[in-house]
Amino acid sequence: MQIAVFGTGQVGRTLATALAAAGHDVCMGSRTKDNPKAAEWVAATGGTASQDDYAGAASRAGLVLNCTPGNVALEVMNMAGKTPMRGKIVADLSNPLDFSHGFPPRLTVCNDDSLAEQLQRALPETLFVKVWNTMWCGLMVNPGLLQGERHTVFCCGNDSGAKEEVRRSLLEPLGWKAEDILDLGDIKAARGLEMYLPLWLQIYGALGHGEFNIRVVNGRAAQRA
Amino acid sequence: MQIAVFGTGQVGRTLATALAAAGHDVCMGSRTKDNPKAAEWVAATGGTASQDDYAGAASRAGLVLNCTPGNVALEVMNMAGKTPMRGKIVADLSNPLDFSHGFPPRLTVCNDDSLAEQLQRALPETLFVKVWNTMWCGLMVNPGLLQGERHTVFCCGNDSGAKEEVRRSLLEPLGWKAEDILDLGDIKAARGLEMYLPLWLQIYGALGHGEFNIRVVNGRAAQRA
Repeated sequence: MQIAVFGTGQVGRTLATALAAAGHDVCMGSRTKDNPKAAEWVAATGGTASQDDYAGAASRAGLVLNCTPGNVALEVMNMAGKTPMRGKIVADLSNPLDFSHGFPPRLTVCNDDSLAEQLQRALPETLFVKVWNTMWCGLMVNPGLLQGERHTVFCCGNDSGAKEEVRRSLLEPLGWKAEDILDLGDIKAARGLEMYLPLWLQIYGALGHGEFNIRVVNGRAAQRA
Repeated sequence: MQIAVFGTGQVGRTLATALAAAGHDVCMGSRTKDNPKAAEWVAATGGTASQDDYAGAASRAGLVLNCTPGNVALEVMNMAGKTPMRGKIVADLSNPLDFSHGFPPRLTVCNDDSLAEQLQRALPETLFVKVWNTMWCGLMVNPGLLQGERHTVFCCGNDSGAKEEVRRSLLEPLGWKAEDILDLGDIKAARGLEMYLPLWLQIYGALGHGEFNIRVVNGRAAQRA
């Protein structure tokens, strides 16, 4: 499948590399067609992947990953444009963190709205799925990293088919098992997923590293395979 | 130990009953000395426990549990009073949820402040420890309920000795093991613990019940005993 990865930072590169390795045709999207960080990444794949600006990458993609920082994500979606993004599924990994006043960062939107809802409102004909924003990117692409222990990835979005596509094309090829994927409902559930970030940052501080995740332990489910 | 439990609702009664059963001398605190719900609870203990108003219960207690709803917790602390509460350890279980606009509730304070910090500022000579606010009360008093699976209780507060006392007098007697208690630092970490509630409510909605908790799965710790 043709996948556009928006964002040339650590999250974007990690996902783009893993999805290319999983056999997808990956195009890294950025503000310019010749972004040097994207070019470096394409070269590292041996030229099997490609790069373009946001609109160009989106135009050819069946699925878009938004790996841009939360403070620019809305601008990025507008740069990608309503027409190239129409009908496209967007896996939104971004978090609305504002580091401008130091650590810990504040959320720029929370409580009765979320970044994912802002993006969905900006591009109403695009199918946003919030996913993967609750963990370090090394775990997104390698869920087995936690000593084989089970842990949870959440998703939410207004379109069931889009969530199913994210599961089939992104989560399962990277090793996420169906029983550890928890669908929280429509895009409004992104409020909870984004408001979890302050707790994530506290746990990160307490453990001293980001190699952790949370598992939802359900007292009424069959927990053991 | 003499323990005051503030709050006559489901959380307060559940905790008060479990702590009385664990051998503590429990006094249920409420607005009036003769609160009928507290009286009913005392009668159900066979008269081994007691009831009083907030100030009276606090005066005799070594440790106070705040199990009042978040929308009245600050008022309750002021009713208890600075003098009776001076030097006392308060385990704060409350969440700043506002249900007045329906479900899901909004948080009345979040992001750059928290209810626990508001309480701590109101009673600066009281030692607040945020704990247990991230789960259903049935689990607080019976962590083995999740089919024996491990899961996490968080705590935070400015005083290390107070956190140690909460662990020794409350968490461990009710079955919480040291490896599942995660200290997140000072009282500011309550922001993350309270902002987790929207996600808790989403998970509750997805599973259809509250008999769940999250476990922090740490990739660098010895996970298996």
